[in-house]
Amino acid sequence: MARSVERVAVIGLGLIGSSIARAVKERLPQVVVTGHDASDAVREIARGLGLCDHLSDDPASAVENADIIILAVPVGGMADAAQAIAPGLAPHAIISDVGSSKAGVAAALAKALPDHIVIPAHPVAGTENSGPAAGFSTLFDGRWCILTPAADAPADAVEAVSSLWEALGAKVDVMDAAHHDMVLAVTSHLPHLIAYTIVGTASELEEVTESEVIKYSAGGFRDFTRIAASDPVMWRDVFLANKDAVLATLQRFNEDLTVLQQAIRRGDADKLEDWFTRTRAIRRSIIAEGQDDPAPDFGRKH
Amino acid sequence: MARSVERVAVIGLGLIGSSIARAVKERLPQVVVTGHDASDAVREIARGLGLCDHLSDDPASAVENADIIILAVPVGGMADAAQAIAPGLAPHAIISDVGSSKAGVAAALAKALPDHIVIPAHPVAGTENSGPAAGFSTLFDGRWCILTPAADAPADAVEAVSSLWEALGAKVDVMDAAHHDMVLAVTSHLPHLIAYTIVGTASELEEVTESEVIKYSAGGFRDFTRIAASDPVMWRDVFLANKDAVLATLQRFNEDLTVLQQAIRRGDADKLEDWFTRTRAIRRSIIAEGQDDPAPDFGRKH
Ligand SMILES: NC(=O)c1ccc[n+]([C@@H]2O[C@H](COP(=O)([O-])OP(=O)(O)OC[C@H]3O[C@@H](n4cnc5c(N)ncnc54)[C@H](OP(=O)(O)O)[C@@H]3O)[C@@H](O)[C@H]2O)c1
Ligand SMILES: NC(=O)c1ccc[n+]([C@@H]2O[C@H](COP(=O)([O-])OP(=O)(O)OC[C@H]3O[C@@H](n4cnc5c(N)ncnc54)[C@H](OP(=O)(O)O)[C@@H]3O)[C@@H](O)[C@H]2O)c1
Repeated sequence: MARSVERVAVIGLGLIGSSIARAVKERLPQVVVTGHDASDAVREIARGLGLCDHLSDDPASAVENADIIILAVPVGGMADAAQAIAPGLAPHAIISDVGSSKAGVAAALAKALPDHIVIPAHPVAGTENSGPAAGFSTLFDGRWCILTPAADAPADAVEAVSSLWEALGAKVDVMDAAHHDMVLAVTSHLPHLIAYTIVGTASELEEVTESEVIKYSAGGFRDFTRIAASDPVMWRDVFLANKDAVLATLQRFNEDLTVLQQAIRRGDADKLEDWFTRTRAIRRSIIAEGQDDPAPDFGRKH
Repeated sequence: MARSVERVAVIGLGLIGSSIARAVKERLPQVVVTGHDASDAVREIARGLGLCDHLSDDPASAVENADIIILAVPVGGMADAAQAIAPGLAPHAIISDVGSSKAGVAAALAKALPDHIVIPAHPVAGTENSGPAAGFSTLFDGRWCILTPAADAPADAVEAVSSLWEALGAKVDVMDAAHHDMVLAVTSHLPHLIAYTIVGTASELEEVTESEVIKYSAGGFRDFTRIAASDPVMWRDVFLANKDAVLATLQRFNEDLTVLQQAIRRGDADKLEDWFTRTRAIRRSIIAEGQDDPAPDFGRKH
């Protein structure tokens, strides 16, 4: 039998948490949204924006009577957040989260809440901005949300979390937490690591001034600065939590970079052209699947 | 005395050449635009689009009486293009180009056209698309165009090319060709190399399918696919022409990547957070300087 979801609690009201609150209010107006954030300043802004029906200064009371609780705090804060809500949880409550890495978070939540149903999730959507003002209700439209329930998770609880995400505009996939972490290491964590690296490199060269890097960034560099402007605490936590998968994919990246480096050094024109022709096809597929804007240059204003 | 520019010839009518032709027609309606492209198909499309006042099947006749000729062909084709126009050049003609690397191109043009005035240039603007249909007249608005004249280049010729680019919407800088190549290695060539690499890596992993990479690309990966969809021939030529500067900056990038890799392996949270906080500032400066769209996610449609 399908569970009824009448109250949703959101813990952590930054980019993702506030987007969830907005989307629930807009698309599921019958559902009551309660919320909490550890930061006084964030709660103040959230109140001003009217993000929740009830905003509580205390995590445990924020989750009272909630059917689904979504933890939307940095990955490294999940265990604390889970402990803080434990006293207020209803016995039937489903605890979910939005953390960008899953195996570590799933273990931390299972440990902190041994008597509760935990259905970890990760909406693959976001922007470079953070905080409650950065959220918007359409953030999850057409994006994938990956659930990583344990093998023995109750099917109706998985179904309830899945339906919630679909109601918020997302498409849902279910996979093993370890596989999630490998997939996201490639599609998200490694890209962020590379972007953070190159932006650091560019800003520290002796031969080229920072002002030159900024002026001529439209040559390609500026694309990387968007990702490298993402929240430092959030990303610190992701790399620490998904260390093994990130280092494994980084190893593969390094091998490929060495191959291209050698092709440039040797003047191997064919190798370069072949490689660049191959990579072109992937973008077409991403656009065909509705996962990026088909307009040139992401539709940037020129 | 200022030179008068009444006729501009564009050789190569792809993304950049066709954008120049469009911008001249729109913003300098009194100037006659002549053109040529080596490809029959491109000339056919260019004719259909009405890109030029006169489109010639023959390079030498395309440049007859032109005051400024702009070579907009891949970097590796500049010498051939210069040789092909030589018989048609007026004695006073200024030959310029738009090649993404400059020291090699400047030398090739000076060698091919020893009796002519050569003022190399590079507009730092583009999209991932190529060909005559991809161009648009506002491509250069607010972007920088870098001129790299030889030390003994006539000042009035530099001034004429500079004024032309300003009329097309660009801001103009003048620098040494070798310095240009180092700056652009950082702001454009290395970013492209890294993007080509990571897109290649992601599409060849055994553990993660290509379909997964595409589905979950909104986590960051899709940003890199835009750049890695750029023209393979153009980029092959850029890496071969600017080999030394690209390999030098790549070396620095590799060092920095090793530092971050080690910080992740050791769980050095502070190092990661510090680094990610530093890189955040650069994007703000790029936006403040008008070199990127301030909207979240480049203003992508969600
Ligand atoms: N940004 C993305 O693109 C994206 C995409 C998918 C998933 N995620 C995941 O979503 C989660 C949130 O990210 P976000 O981008 O929304 O971050 P954010 O905008 O920085 O918001 C996180 C909020 O949680 C608060 N917080 C921290 N610890 C807390 C605790 N123990 N209890 C209650 N509130 C707490 C923070 O307050 P303070 O500011 O005082 O610390 C902050 O207001 C992370 O796990 C991240 O991995 C992010
Ligand atoms: N794309 C960018 O973002 C960008 C930015 C700044 C500067 N640039 C530089 O601009 C130049 C052109 O790039 P693009 O993006 O405009 O490339 P594109 O769209 O591929 O156009 C190049 C055109 O030149 C033609 N061509 C090749 N060799 C020729 C020759 N010897 N004589 C006449 N036409 C010839 C090509 O014909 P075929 O198709 O038959 O080869 C093609 O139509 C390159 O030097 C590049 O480095 C590019």
